[in-house]
Amino acid sequence: MTLLIKSAFSATATPPTSLATRLLAVRTQSVALCAPLLPEDTVVQPALDVSPPKWHLAHTTWFWETFLLLPYAADYQVFDPAFAFLFNSYYNSLGSRVNRADRGTLSRPPLAEVYRYRAHVDAHLAALLDRPEALPAAALELIELGLHHEQQHQELLATDIRYILSTNPLAPAYLGFEDEGLEIRDLGFEQLSRKDAPTGFLHSNSPSPDSLISNPLSSNPTWLSVPGGIYPVGHQANGFCFDNELPVHEVLLAPFALQNRLVTNADYLAFVEDGGYQRFELWLGEGWELVQREAWTAPLYWQQTPGGQWLRYGPHGLRPLELAAPACHLSFYEADAYAQWARARLPTEAEWEAAARYFGATPAGGNFLEAGRFDPRPLPAGADPARCHQLFGDVWEWTYSPYHAYPGYRRAAGALGEYNGKFMVNQLVLRGGSCATPESHIRVSYRNFFHADKRWQFTGLRLAK
Amino acid sequence: MTLLIKSAFSATATPPTSLATRLLAVRTQSVALCAPLLPEDTVVQPALDVSPPKWHLAHTTWFWETFLLLPYAADYQVFDPAFAFLFNSYYNSLGSRVNRADRGTLSRPPLAEVYRYRAHVDAHLAALLDRPEALPAAALELIELGLHHEQQHQELLATDIRYILSTNPLAPAYLGFEDEGLEIRDLGFEQLSRKDAPTGFLHSNSPSPDSLISNPLSSNPTWLSVPGGIYPVGHQANGFCFDNELPVHEVLLAPFALQNRLVTNADYLAFVEDGGYQRFELWLGEGWELVQREAWTAPLYWQQTPGGQWLRYGPHGLRPLELAAPACHLSFYEADAYAQWARARLPTEAEWEAAARYFGATPAGGNFLEAGRFDPRPLPAGADPARCHQLFGDVWEWTYSPYHAYPGYRRAAGALGEYNGKFMVNQLVLRGGSCATPESHIRVSYRNFFHADKRWQFTGLRLAK
Amino acid sequence: MTLLIKSAFSATATPPTSLATRLLAVRTQSVALCAPLLPEDTVVQPALDVSPPKWHLAHTTWFWETFLLLPYAADYQVFDPAFAFLFNSYYNSLGSRVNRADRGTLSRPPLAEVYRYRAHVDAHLAALLDRPEALPAAALELIELGLHHEQQHQELLATDIRYILSTNPLAPAYLGFEDEGLEIRDLGFEQLSRKDAPTGFLHSNSPSPDSLISNPLSSNPTWLSVPGGIYPVGHQANGFCFDNELPVHEVLLAPFALQNRLVTNADYLAFVEDGGYQRFELWLGEGWELVQREAWTAPLYWQQTPGGQWLRYGPHGLRPLELAAPACHLSFYEADAYAQWARARLPTEAEWEAAARYFGATPAGGNFLEAGRFDPRPLPAGADPARCHQLFGDVWEWTYSPYHAYPGYRRAAGALGEYNGKFMVNQLVLRGGSCATPESHIRVSYRNFFHADKRWQFTGLRLAK
Amino acid sequence: MTLLIKSAFSATATPPTSLATRLLAVRTQSVALCAPLLPEDTVVQPALDVSPPKWHLAHTTWFWETFLLLPYAADYQVFDPAFAFLFNSYYNSLGSRVNRADRGTLSRPPLAEVYRYRAHVDAHLAALLDRPEALPAAALELIELGLHHEQQHQELLATDIRYILSTNPLAPAYLGFEDEGLEIRDLGFEQLSRKDAPTGFLHSNSPSPDSLISNPLSSNPTWLSVPGGIYPVGHQANGFCFDNELPVHEVLLAPFALQNRLVTNADYLAFVEDGGYQRFELWLGEGWELVQREAWTAPLYWQQTPGGQWLRYGPHGLRPLELAAPACHLSFYEADAYAQWARARLPTEAEWEAAARYFGATPAGGNFLEAGRFDPRPLPAGADPARCHQLFGDVWEWTYSPYHAYPGYRRAAGALGEYNGKFMVNQLVLRGGSCATPESHIRVSYRNFFHADKRWQFTGLRLAK
Repeated sequence: MTLLIKSAFSATATPPTSLATRLLAVRTQSVALCAPLLPEDTVVQPALDVSPPKWHLAHTTWFWETFLLLPYAADYQVFDPAFAFLFNSYYNSLGSRVNRADRGTLSRPPLAEVYRYRAHVDAHLAALLDRPEALPAAALELIELGLHHEQQHQELLATDIRYILSTNPLAPAYLGFEDEGLEIRDLGFEQLSRKDAPTGFLHSNSPSPDSLISNPLSSNPTWLSVPGGIYPVGHQANGFCFDNELPVHEVLLAPFALQNRLVTNADYLAFVEDGGYQRFELWLGEGWELVQREAWTAPLYWQQTPGGQWLRYGPHGLRPLELAAPACHLSFYEADAYAQWARARLPTEAEWEAAARYFGATPAGGNFLEAGRFDPRPLPAGADPARCHQLFGDVWEWTYSPYHAYPGYRRAAGALGEYNGKFMVNQLVLRGGSCATPESHIRVSYRNFFHADKRWQFTGLRLAK
Repeated sequence: MTLLIKSAFSATATPPTSLATRLLAVRTQSVALCAPLLPEDTVVQPALDVSPPKWHLAHTTWFWETFLLLPYAADYQVFDPAFAFLFNSYYNSLGSRVNRADRGTLSRPPLAEVYRYRAHVDAHLAALLDRPEALPAAALELIELGLHHEQQHQELLATDIRYILSTNPLAPAYLGFEDEGLEIRDLGFEQLSRKDAPTGFLHSNSPSPDSLISNPLSSNPTWLSVPGGIYPVGHQANGFCFDNELPVHEVLLAPFALQNRLVTNADYLAFVEDGGYQRFELWLGEGWELVQREAWTAPLYWQQTPGGQWLRYGPHGLRPLELAAPACHLSFYEADAYAQWARARLPTEAEWEAAARYFGATPAGGNFLEAGRFDPRPLPAGADPARCHQLFGDVWEWTYSPYHAYPGYRRAAGALGEYNGKFMVNQLVLRGGSCATPESHIRVSYRNFFHADKRWQFTGLRLAK
Repeated sequence: MTLLIKSAFSATATPPTSLATRLLAVRTQSVALCAPLLPEDTVVQPALDVSPPKWHLAHTTWFWETFLLLPYAADYQVFDPAFAFLFNSYYNSLGSRVNRADRGTLSRPPLAEVYRYRAHVDAHLAALLDRPEALPAAALELIELGLHHEQQHQELLATDIRYILSTNPLAPAYLGFEDEGLEIRDLGFEQLSRKDAPTGFLHSNSPSPDSLISNPLSSNPTWLSVPGGIYPVGHQANGFCFDNELPVHEVLLAPFALQNRLVTNADYLAFVEDGGYQRFELWLGEGWELVQREAWTAPLYWQQTPGGQWLRYGPHGLRPLELAAPACHLSFYEADAYAQWARARLPTEAEWEAAARYFGATPAGGNFLEAGRFDPRPLPAGADPARCHQLFGDVWEWTYSPYHAYPGYRRAAGALGEYNGKFMVNQLVLRGGSCATPESHIRVSYRNFFHADKRWQFTGLRLAK
Repeated sequence: MTLLIKSAFSATATPPTSLATRLLAVRTQSVALCAPLLPEDTVVQPALDVSPPKWHLAHTTWFWETFLLLPYAADYQVFDPAFAFLFNSYYNSLGSRVNRADRGTLSRPPLAEVYRYRAHVDAHLAALLDRPEALPAAALELIELGLHHEQQHQELLATDIRYILSTNPLAPAYLGFEDEGLEIRDLGFEQLSRKDAPTGFLHSNSPSPDSLISNPLSSNPTWLSVPGGIYPVGHQANGFCFDNELPVHEVLLAPFALQNRLVTNADYLAFVEDGGYQRFELWLGEGWELVQREAWTAPLYWQQTPGGQWLRYGPHGLRPLELAAPACHLSFYEADAYAQWARARLPTEAEWEAAARYFGATPAGGNFLEAGRFDPRPLPAGADPARCHQLFGDVWEWTYSPYHAYPGYRRAAGALGEYNGKFMVNQLVLRGGSCATPESHIRVSYRNFFHADKRWQFTGLRLAK
């Protein structure tokens, strides 16, 4: 299995006794993310990039069934042969599939049947992993890949659910009204009772103005220098990585500096109020066309009241814009225009990775999916200005690097070869993970990628110079 | 209220004591139509012309709330102010509304809340109608209009549900497998248990070939003559009618003849097999462009197996084409091309109405919504060849008449003036009702109308010459 | 030849000695219309409905070559075999052809070669018609049809040339600056010298305000009554007609009244200034959507200066709106909305034809193509209020009648059967001819037809009630 | 003027006495390229990427007028104020302009007037340059930029003219039939007489099969190695460069190898015949979607006869595919898929530049615009296999590098800042110039850029590994 060149299993002496546990925990997480939803919420597709949650739940299950159970579980019977057509995402080598644009028209199988499908597959997975030592290395590597695949869909679930609920004129909340938010790890499978649901925008629960609190910290980023030199780029540790993080190779970097924190809503609001969305000279040409065509005037989910107050749709519904929080849901074009306006630039992915290694940053303690916040959080008052904060979690950081193959990379053959390689043009790399990324999913060499116009993900930026 | 010029209430001495009963029966019918559906089925919108069933259920309720309860029920409080934005269909005079193309992206309010909305409004309607003698004439006329409005949406529910289920690769059935079909009047509000549901297309329950039965009757239509002369057209009886059926006016008709029955699937199949969809000279120019652009080769819901057998998606899922049944789900273009091929033509609406009066045809005994069949039925063997059959029910009959105003018609002012008048261009008239039309909704002067390319309704044809 | 049931030639004893002369006069007229154009003007296609003038010149020539010379001229050699592909318009029976949307991308053959093509074909036509008595009746009927076909394209040349020049920011004039306009019959084949050309819009020759003259007549239309009864409709005289004018049939009309003149720019301006384009209740639904989508605020070719003055692009470039002239370049939707606003309606085509016969109106003296004005003209002061004016020429009058087949009509077989019949749905009939119609082309039974949204033709209206 | 950091004029002691001569030579070249065209050819726009030749001729003139004459020529009067609106290409800072998609609808000003415009501006340029020593440095730099700008449009003229003529079903030739082609430098301003023009495709001058000559060399490319190390990238010599070639910076390259010649038509045909356009696994995902959507089966301008022979539209019309010539008119997707199939890859732009410097390649002797061939030429038999051929001229070589800013680059302010910087996303770099590039325009650091789907330019590839 060429995809998983450095897997956990080739490098450790301890047998992976906990593999079944890890797998079922990940599987449960996907369901927990959908717990606040009604069946109707899991079906719709308000934009082409967004997939219905029901589809995510079924597709991740089909992935296990197709790539693990069918080849490795003796006598496994598929739950429903029709599901291969319904829930294949983009694997040309695995036959025809439902047109992506039509995912939101499929009411059947209903959510309940998809949950039965999950239970069926989970039971067989548990049985198969009961004796992992009997599995060939290729199967173990496949399991590792499947875990990461499902974690990627968990992030998509978080972003797609937000988009689906946001387009509803009732602006329903995903999380409850409690100050700290629901801990997603505490969520059971019981449907939220509707009487507890918050009322939304059209119900005009206008937020109180005093929630617009100021945050002195957000106005004082510092610049941290990184020396020039030759740096290694790519996955150098043990443990899983995707094929796109390899081979490790060296790059020559000139000296550069990064800001010690992410750009905040307060920062970005200054750009908006300085006419940022009306000044073509700040924008890349294709970005400017998009701004005009779509009449963008602010990041996704921001809206201004007739009285001029800025609100933002988030996990608790429409709330006043939190100024100290990192700016989020920005396209690359917006991130780049902001950097132009700020007389700075975006880092390259090599700079980002070199800096993260140089500063010794790790994911530990970051604001990830498991925190159940589903939104970036402000840097605490008193954070050390000499340290580099928020490199992991909160928001994906746009880089000024194309999502291209590393030198020496070759696409794998077969269906899994379509996993990464075929996307390697016309997209840009993002680094560091977000508040919707599972913590165990991210690492310093991890490369996320999106087209420059996308902004429904948890995407923001950090300035470089 | 100018819309309801000849209402039941101005012409009868008996007070409408049963009005509340009639109304609640109609209201219940809408819910019964949705009983076989899962919540997920009620949300999606696989084509622009199709509305989600949940939307129909809410929109008809909004109609009663807006036009009857708010003006006439003292102290009535709207169930939810946001619903006016969500469930207005096309009344410009009543403010902005959800874009029609986005109806299928709204997961909230969920189906259960829409049922609560219906119950809330029904309770107030019942209270208001408890003493109908206290209501002004305008309110009574409004109730009559609202009943017919809801019946129109019942027909749309039947057609939209079919379309929604048909686009699903699982091809789920709407009705059970019993020979006679479920009687919809027997349906309660309990959800159908999923374990009883029929398996669909992808589950490959291929029908047995012996179900392709022949029907000798279908090959022998007869021509019935109608003498020329001056005929009145329009609603001449007491009782409700829409404004588009008035004023009554006279037309001069040359002698003509109609076939005594509808065109059948056997008839239409002969056209298909004679290359009907490949011969441009049979088609109107815009129809031919459509056939090529959409790659039409047969009516909607027909499909041919690799072995050459013709199947058709209907209320019981995919079944062999029933040759003796009337052809259905035809666009005007297809109906017109068939008539060209058959060296005949479509009747005008004046001819249809004159013939129906001349032959003394009435809706009684027709195949309507209440029969719970949801499909046209074959003419029974032994039907009298000297009589004109199937004029009412089974399928709407395309006419070669534009949906234009009758001489002397003027659009009403206000919101209800948008009901009919603003559609009076670029559509064609259909007559006679279908198997999805409530029997009490149809009459000899009733004018239905659709664009020439539409075929998701229960639409067929009868030849004239 | 079933198309030409009542031709001049079957009904008259005198041999058509002047046929060659008539034909060459019509052929010359087409070239004369293009004389003011530069080669570049004859190539472009700024809208799908508009064809390049070079294409019209070649297509009409191809028509003669294909339908007359090839079948009837012994040993005729086609000028260039490639032209059948290039210059077929819409005859499916004659093979594939250049996509209509691509007509404006064909630079070759150049204009000069198209003129050579015309000369080649004209020479053979002259030779063939030298002894018309040797021609079979079918050929003579074909010649008659070809003459009318070329005259139809002359009207299209006039409308398409206007559109092509109007979309140019330089707003070039088609005619010179002389008060009366160039007489097109005086135009030779010499190109207009560029130094004489008028300067256009971007050259800011703003017209003097005093040219906004008032016209007292335009504010006083009178209503003329027509009694009810049974009227014949269709071509009843000798001479040529198109198949769509037959069969003659009878219609029953209720008494009605027509205005004695066309709606003027002054009339229509009152509608515009009364908010006509902002009031949805005046519009048919599809018309209102179009008004919003295209942001229409006035008829085609009108524009308002920042100072509020209304200008109009016409044959002399941009000039102040001539208030007394008939309103022109209106879509059916605009004509209908105006009539709603004026509390009147459009006539049906049967009413128009019955009225024209009743009032004894004839084309003689009308403002047609031969006048070289290329714009409707005001009704002269002192016109008799008891007479019905402007029924022929000036502008085509929209009727509220679909372009459908008359009772008993059947489409002809073969290529010429595609001439009229295949367009008989979704269009509306216009009557009376315009300032771009050759006078010999029009008659009381003539049926023109366009879709309701078209307005680049010379189209206006007359009110009925 | 920050754009032209290292201009010829700051670095040389000799006064630029020949500047006027150079400029007028370049100006004349543009006109010479259009000499074989008819006026009609200069107007049309068969694809959005293609501009009408008349537009190129006027736009380059407007550039001189706007950026040089208006600021620096005392009392200069613009030729026509309307032209600023008509012939601005994409400079937002200079106001509104004709929509790019509408360039092909503008018949006026006619070609003759554009030539007058050129003559007017050329006369003033000559006068201004008569005493270049009186001009400020900024003006001199502007002249240098203007020369290169016009040369870029000369390449576009060559590619757009080919596309325009190719879409015509007559397939007219651009050059005459003489074996060596017309030398463009010999072309005068006299229009080609039409009687000499070659007949095209629809005239079925099928080429003789014996012109399909084999070329033994094309099957034996060799691999030439380049050692790893730190290489400088960017413009390091004196003389003009664009801002996107700066700053010079260092990159670290691993050892790599390039093929000693371009991929030929014979090479590429083997890919085609091996099912290259049917095998999704060879393609980037977006490329595969494009191949299917546009039904690509071969490079642009290739077509296969029913008998299986491959023809290609080129400067002499449709001719048999020249197997030994470099493959041309390939999109990036096709170049990348070919490389995948050949188990190699495309070079990066840094590799290309490093290799060119390492091999000491220069433009001298390359196949450029001045050769008048307008097509890549085969590598001569006997070419040294140890040398790297065809690096300059023939075809632009796709690299696997994004068109991004070099480290330290900043966009210039003002209109000229829109020249390069705003395009720096979603495009790929091409290197080396083509047979349509003026020889004096190219250099080793030159960066051309196009989107991955474009193939109407002279684009090909060289393999790396």
